[in-house]
Amino acid sequence: MDKTDVLIIGGSAAGLMAANTLKKRYPEKKVTVVRNVKKTPVPCGIPYIYGILKDVAKDIIPDEGFLNAGIEILSKHVEKVDRAGKTVTLNDGSSIGYEKLILGTGSKPFVPPMPGINLKNVFTVKKDPEYLDELYVALQKVKNVVVIGGGFIGVEMAEQIAKMSGAVCQDYFCTAEQSGATINVSLIEMLPHCLMLACEEEFGIVAENELKKMGINVMVENQVKSIDDDGTGKVSSVTMTNGTKLSADLVIIGIGAVPNIDLAESVGLSANPRGGFDVDEYLQTQDPDVYAAGDCAAKFSFFTGKPSGIRLASVACTEGMIAASNLYNEKSRKTMGALGAFATKVGERSIGAAGLTTKAAADEKIEVVIGEAVAPNRHPGALPGCIPTMKAKLLFRKDNGVIVGGHICGSEAAADMANVIAVAIQSKLTAEDMATMQYATHPLLTSSPLSYHVMLAAENAAAQLAK
Amino acid sequence: MDKTDVLIIGGSAAGLMAANTLKKRYPEKKVTVVRNVKKTPVPCGIPYIYGILKDVAKDIIPDEGFLNAGIEILSKHVEKVDRAGKTVTLNDGSSIGYEKLILGTGSKPFVPPMPGINLKNVFTVKKDPEYLDELYVALQKVKNVVVIGGGFIGVEMAEQIAKMSGAVCQDYFCTAEQSGATINVSLIEMLPHCLMLACEEEFGIVAENELKKMGINVMVENQVKSIDDDGTGKVSSVTMTNGTKLSADLVIIGIGAVPNIDLAESVGLSANPRGGFDVDEYLQTQDPDVYAAGDCAAKFSFFTGKPSGIRLASVACTEGMIAASNLYNEKSRKTMGALGAFATKVGERSIGAAGLTTKAAADEKIEVVIGEAVAPNRHPGALPGCIPTMKAKLLFRKDNGVIVGGHICGSEAAADMANVIAVAIQSKLTAEDMATMQYATHPLLTSSPLSYHVMLAAENAAAQLAK
Repeated sequence: MDKTDVLIIGGSAAGLMAANTLKKRYPEKKVTVVRNVKKTPVPCGIPYIYGILKDVAKDIIPDEGFLNAGIEILSKHVEKVDRAGKTVTLNDGSSIGYEKLILGTGSKPFVPPMPGINLKNVFTVKKDPEYLDELYVALQKVKNVVVIGGGFIGVEMAEQIAKMSGAVCQDYFCTAEQSGATINVSLIEMLPHCLMLACEEEFGIVAENELKKMGINVMVENQVKSIDDDGTGKVSSVTMTNGTKLSADLVIIGIGAVPNIDLAESVGLSANPRGGFDVDEYLQTQDPDVYAAGDCAAKFSFFTGKPSGIRLASVACTEGMIAASNLYNEKSRKTMGALGAFATKVGERSIGAAGLTTKAAADEKIEVVIGEAVAPNRHPGALPGCIPTMKAKLLFRKDNGVIVGGHICGSEAAADMANVIAVAIQSKLTAEDMATMQYATHPLLTSSPLSYHVMLAAENAAAQLAK
Repeated sequence: MDKTDVLIIGGSAAGLMAANTLKKRYPEKKVTVVRNVKKTPVPCGIPYIYGILKDVAKDIIPDEGFLNAGIEILSKHVEKVDRAGKTVTLNDGSSIGYEKLILGTGSKPFVPPMPGINLKNVFTVKKDPEYLDELYVALQKVKNVVVIGGGFIGVEMAEQIAKMSGAVCQDYFCTAEQSGATINVSLIEMLPHCLMLACEEEFGIVAENELKKMGINVMVENQVKSIDDDGTGKVSSVTMTNGTKLSADLVIIGIGAVPNIDLAESVGLSANPRGGFDVDEYLQTQDPDVYAAGDCAAKFSFFTGKPSGIRLASVACTEGMIAASNLYNEKSRKTMGALGAFATKVGERSIGAAGLTTKAAADEKIEVVIGEAVAPNRHPGALPGCIPTMKAKLLFRKDNGVIVGGHICGSEAAADMANVIAVAIQSKLTAEDMATMQYATHPLLTSSPLSYHVMLAAENAAAQLAK
């Protein structure tokens, strides 16, 4: 039987980050990653396989860096975990003994119990290159695609499929034909607007408008009742709850993910089908030698301490790092809870978000003061690349002025500006703190220092809080 | 005699920010800005007048927003300040009474006592549109330009003049002719490398390489002894301290700025020719009704409390906001001291910096641990716009792990990533804090969450600090 020091089940964000962290901290330890795919796709890159990369092989996390660091990677399925014997059995019958175990089994697409869900050409978004390639091949031959779910994955898939079929962003809402697309893409969202779980409603609308400028049929406040059979076991249409039918040669389900706890019974650790493996704030399970990290591990909210459904590669990476650090140095690092720091680009607009939305704050009965700032992202505005109405919206607690959320929409800088806000939230800064800090600016790269969005929005909130 | 509530002398960053802040906090107060230029140029935008904007009028801060907010703007010179009578006399003989006064007179280019400094076609970089237009006209007729000073202003001016004359960034070092430029631009820097006061030496070298790819003759560790007369009072060459001569039809001096304290005697407040008007941490002068903010106000270092020569529009804006807030609500806000948060773009690389450089930390005998991270700024790296070797370098105090500096070089995201670091510095975060925070990432906008530069560099430092 092979032996390793640390066995990591799962070769995506949490697992790879854990492996890297271990090798940095404890180069003498043997670290083995077992993954159930031949290659690890870049999970967040999946939509871009279709429109930009046009090749699944280009969306792979290269193994080289990990192998060079001395990490062993096995592309096999784990069949059984024997915690008493500290041994894992793989699908080829081999087994590996371990000293410490990290569960990083990730998540699986949520598949709703909907009529027609198993028809041919109904896809989910699985982190499996072979499956993703099947989708790519299938997309070459279709005319009408329906994407169900207007969260990040649905919005990005819809945009990239339109792009793949030739859509060019127009400066007006258009049909697929007018956008140059050969595929009619429809995007169906149950909520009033897309991206609403992570973003401000107004920025969800911006994303929708970008999609509409690419000829995508965005249908919000709509729900699918069934996916319909063409008589040969293949999808032909979807039927909405209001009775209307949409032609569909291919359907993509992108309505979220659930933790992959397939091993729960075998490993004999408590797990919740919606939350994942139970862990403490050090990411330790009930077994002191077993940790769980990433999408498969239960999470709590940074803001409320309540269970959180936020599953993101960025959270997974942080958790991988925390779990790895604690293996041989117990309780050295703990999680602050899931914050939710996101970014996306839809058409010609990027959106960044960190922490609570206005709606989420209201749902949690957290009273907030909102500071807004609209300013060009260049100074002077005559410089190329200028988006005159780039906007920031920051949410501060009314009782103590501490920031609980921030949202930016405009240029590609939205992602790193979301990180300025993410750091502020995790540092529990107040509007006053953020208003009077110094920020780097440059004509070609940011707004004017008179109106750096984060500062100005914070000052606007500080002025309200001072009243 | 006219009367106002708040008179602000100076209509650039500090003055305009102070005016805006006052109108937001105290809409009932009359706020008057007096400036000695007809229009306020965007100060940091000045280099881009030449290469990109090709028109001084495009680099103007529009008055509209300020006028619409009810701020009065007068384009006049202040001749006299009578603090006892709370009155200011202007160059047209009129006078204005005030309740509170803010000095925001800015800075002036430092003009070295060098032979030939007053020759025709020797320019500094003044924040005066008419003067800047003269420079623009003069540049149309020259063949050889020498820029003295390899700090931000010198580097940016050299780059933009090359660009203005047709230079296109090559993928190798080249002559002006090979770059397509009609003007030979030389850049002279005394220190071993450009940008060394703000940036890591290695990133100064990146900037130099970008300039060399545009055909610019970069001469580091060089000093000018004299600017030489062609016999008609016009510059013909510069002579270096090592005796060599460089042909020059036009010379630009960009070796820093000194506070503009021309009014010091008249206003009767203590001021230092190098530091500026003396102020406390609330930016109040000795006169409780007079504040000073921005380049004309003395500064101390965020890190050491010692006098600081950092003069930046971003610092000026923060100070304008602080001074304005304190006018009618004494000591409500204080400055943390000048941090130094910068960004620039040179050729195809952007550089961001916040806080101390390795050299500055060593000069202050602050022992640091350096965490570095090199990673693509896209994930997967096959995505367009990928810079595979974007690099972050973070400096943490060895004694307590607190961050004191951060430097980024690569894509345009460097500016906002410098702000992630700037916020971390001002929040006194440790390497441990920064390594385990959650950051937003996206394939099209940032590195992978496995290698978000700020997080990864912090983790690398944390691992060193844990030893």
